[in-house]
Amino acid sequence: MTEYNIALVGFGGVNRALAQLIAERNQAWKKQLGFSLKIVGISDLFLGSIVASQGLDAGLLSKLPATKGALAQLPGGQVEALNEQVIKDSGADIIAEATFTNPVDGEPASTFCRWALEQGKHVVTTNKGPIALHSAELKALAQRNLAAFEYEGAVMSGTPVIRMAKQSLAGSGLLGFEGILNGTSNFVLTRMEAGLGFAEAVAEAQALGYAEADPSADVEGFDVRLKVVILANELLDAQLTVSDVSCRGISGLTVKDLEQARAEGARWKLIGSAQRLADGSLQASVEPRLLPLAHPLAGIGGAINAVSFNTELLGAVTVSGPGAGRIETAFALLSDIIHIHQSRLAR
Amino acid sequence: MTEYNIALVGFGGVNRALAQLIAERNQAWKKQLGFSLKIVGISDLFLGSIVASQGLDAGLLSKLPATKGALAQLPGGQVEALNEQVIKDSGADIIAEATFTNPVDGEPASTFCRWALEQGKHVVTTNKGPIALHSAELKALAQRNLAAFEYEGAVMSGTPVIRMAKQSLAGSGLLGFEGILNGTSNFVLTRMEAGLGFAEAVAEAQALGYAEADPSADVEGFDVRLKVVILANELLDAQLTVSDVSCRGISGLTVKDLEQARAEGARWKLIGSAQRLADGSLQASVEPRLLPLAHPLAGIGGAINAVSFNTELLGAVTVSGPGAGRIETAFALLSDIIHIHQSRLAR
Repeated sequence: MTEYNIALVGFGGVNRALAQLIAERNQAWKKQLGFSLKIVGISDLFLGSIVASQGLDAGLLSKLPATKGALAQLPGGQVEALNEQVIKDSGADIIAEATFTNPVDGEPASTFCRWALEQGKHVVTTNKGPIALHSAELKALAQRNLAAFEYEGAVMSGTPVIRMAKQSLAGSGLLGFEGILNGTSNFVLTRMEAGLGFAEAVAEAQALGYAEADPSADVEGFDVRLKVVILANELLDAQLTVSDVSCRGISGLTVKDLEQARAEGARWKLIGSAQRLADGSLQASVEPRLLPLAHPLAGIGGAINAVSFNTELLGAVTVSGPGAGRIETAFALLSDIIHIHQSRLAR
Repeated sequence: MTEYNIALVGFGGVNRALAQLIAERNQAWKKQLGFSLKIVGISDLFLGSIVASQGLDAGLLSKLPATKGALAQLPGGQVEALNEQVIKDSGADIIAEATFTNPVDGEPASTFCRWALEQGKHVVTTNKGPIALHSAELKALAQRNLAAFEYEGAVMSGTPVIRMAKQSLAGSGLLGFEGILNGTSNFVLTRMEAGLGFAEAVAEAQALGYAEADPSADVEGFDVRLKVVILANELLDAQLTVSDVSCRGISGLTVKDLEQARAEGARWKLIGSAQRLADGSLQASVEPRLLPLAHPLAGIGGAINAVSFNTELLGAVTVSGPGAGRIETAFALLSDIIHIHQSRLAR
């Protein structure tokens, strides 16, 4: 039985949910998965930091008050977020990076990943920034240092997408994908189909906690665009940057458009897609598309996400599931760790 | 680079499609997958048999006339199906078993699997019979002989279901599943929603080659029941036999039932399901269910199949794709071989 030392960088909803899972399930994982996790460090811009090579109580951590510098209240804790120390000097085998997504330069998360990988520590992350902007560099760095770099949660939280395509669909001849990759915009469209205006539907999404105060990343397609870049680069061997992907959101759609679509037996959906064309080039876009009801993505309603893979041998294979959520995204980190564990066993 | 010797037992649509894939893609697989396949034997009740340790021309084989004893026309071929010789003495590393499904005792396929596994040869199969009826025995036999026994194609052809649940959803806490696991009956329901009567819709399915002359295995749920047994035993650690699963098909549904469902914002679907209950017991059934349109399986139309996994950490995760087809099912065999290759590398 293996015990991995893990350090949690960013202690918001996702890594806190991971701590909760560790508290509740570590014993069961020993038997089911063949490993357990010991939290040896945490850092968070707001909460401070702590290093504890003997291990921290995951149950206590998951209930830590969300107050400025709260980690300083624990023995050995600090008000400051000593990120570099937590990453490099906590004795962690694995760094779980779950800080905020910075779509401009991926910082500071990209630096956190570099610090870990340079030292041969495995990185699991749910952060779209480092992956969309620097995945080639970070993957090469990981490889040079014999470390794993896994990020299933960067797209559709814990719903298996990257690993499903790379493992289960290996050999099927992946030609491209279409996805509903943002739950907020899909929720807004679903509510508009029920008659709400765009602004009204966005307000409801905000009230339910689906949408940010500034909803533009969701409804204008910028969030989907990052995910299209991630999936195209990972699965279609592309080298896209964000500016290679044309992007139009749903703010131009009206209730009338959606009503007319319904009358025609179709639905508007915000689709992120990439296809390998016959000449070998890659076409990638984010845009509202009018889907016939028989399309595998037409039935995806509410905050659910889905990706439909277009394959040579199977035609369309579609996976749908949650696209967000604390526990759901923490599961993505767990699934990355399971993959690392199995790959290491394989050596 | 590895070359696996493979023997094809049963040379109907599926193994013939595998031969076609080998003819078209073996060179590409060397680079993409790290292995190639050499066909060293074939046996088929109707076509005869052949053993050829130097390897057979996959392209020629995929075009073999479908005439009685056709394999005897090749050098060294026989009119008789010398199954045991092909399995045991062809020098095959892997046996691809794709004979007909016998839902009563799984024969002769189960015997073919036993012959192979006893000699430490890996078995890949798309045959529901041996898996639904004898999987525990055959898995134990495989383990004792350090052989792999893989059968992704027994459910939903090449659409990843078994391996998706076991690999990608490991650790998610699988509680149960609901599936549309028979394309013929789903096609019949979809056509009945368009106004066709049951008999008319079945006749159309027969004309399109979806349904057998005797459609009862499809429309009465017996085919789905085998798949429920396979998935429950494989994924929920059950020891179900066929008689443990209550079974009711769609022949009792009328066009009026389907119209009324539509008026109520719902759809009738033939659902195979198994759930682990709170007391640890397992409930499994095949029956028509009235699904609200928001249900992840409600939108699955035509001959498409889908499984929705119910998990503790992610809620519902659903995969949909083809449930049948020559090439699609041959891909299942390929995906089993990829898995064997990667697991062997892992040793």
